[in-house]
Amino acid sequence: MLAIQDFYPAEFSHCYGCGTRNPHGHKLQSYLIGDIVEARYTVDPIYSGGFPNKVYGGLLASLLDCHGAASAAAFSYRAIGREIDDGSAPDRFVTGTLTVVYHKPTPLGVELFLQGKLKSISNRKAIIELSLSADGNVCVSGEMIAIKLPSET
Amino acid sequence: MLAIQDFYPAEFSHCYGCGTRNPHGHKLQSYLIGDIVEARYTVDPIYSGGFPNKVYGGLLASLLDCHGAASAAAFSYRAIGREIDDGSAPDRFVTGTLTVVYHKPTPLGVELFLQGKLKSISNRKAIIELSLSADGNVCVSGEMIAIKLPSET
Repeated sequence: MLAIQDFYPAEFSHCYGCGTRNPHGHKLQSYLIGDIVEARYTVDPIYSGGFPNKVYGGLLASLLDCHGAASAAAFSYRAIGREIDDGSAPDRFVTGTLTVVYHKPTPLGVELFLQGKLKSISNRKAIIELSLSADGNVCVSGEMIAIKLPSET
Repeated sequence: MLAIQDFYPAEFSHCYGCGTRNPHGHKLQSYLIGDIVEARYTVDPIYSGGFPNKVYGGLLASLLDCHGAASAAAFSYRAIGREIDDGSAPDRFVTGTLTVVYHKPTPLGVELFLQGKLKSISNRKAIIELSLSADGNVCVSGEMIAIKLPSET
């Protein structure tokens, strides 16, 4: 099963967080399953937070950012009745505003589970509700206002 | 001149974004100068965004996060009339909520300039206004609600 990020155009695939063409990065992979975009990711221990054995808050913001942009793309395709693999000009979103709420420290060494839910969508932007859980506990939640880039075709 | 992060206690110095004890990370260094906390940082090109030659949005959120927490610590010391190097139990802050607004793409290969300004402070939390500029242009702004950890001493 291909991830949403696998369908990003080449010139949009260099992101450290989720780009297939960035050899150094996290390569987050997000999937639309039912009405929710999901991803699972286990953080390398080098990305420690201030406290040992907790995930660096900046990385958590990064994962929400990448997952939110992927969610916006997936929901946009669905909203206009397109398939993500239809071969025509892709819908591309960038982050307008990202809000991240840290509820509790996120443990390292545990698979993290991200969810993205559609709050609203228009021709120009999508608002995505985000959460990140470890062991069934929501450690971080957030909201992204994603802005649709004008199509070049 | 020592940075605010140089005064973080050892157990709080593992952060990938700004910890002096994380050999892999960015080691952001923030300084209180007048009424503003400032930092300068040039991003390694591996931290590309989706587009080449632009900084990864997640890293920008990370820099604001680390800079905001450092700003909160510095402003807290000032508010209670303490010096950061007075040797007593340090004030430590964690992020409660971070909001990041992306105004324009941030170029790679340019020294970035961060500013943190105090919006409000109480015994329990500080609210910090943040900005990140490149070549004199504000590319990203934000706000952090930083939560003061209970003192262990």
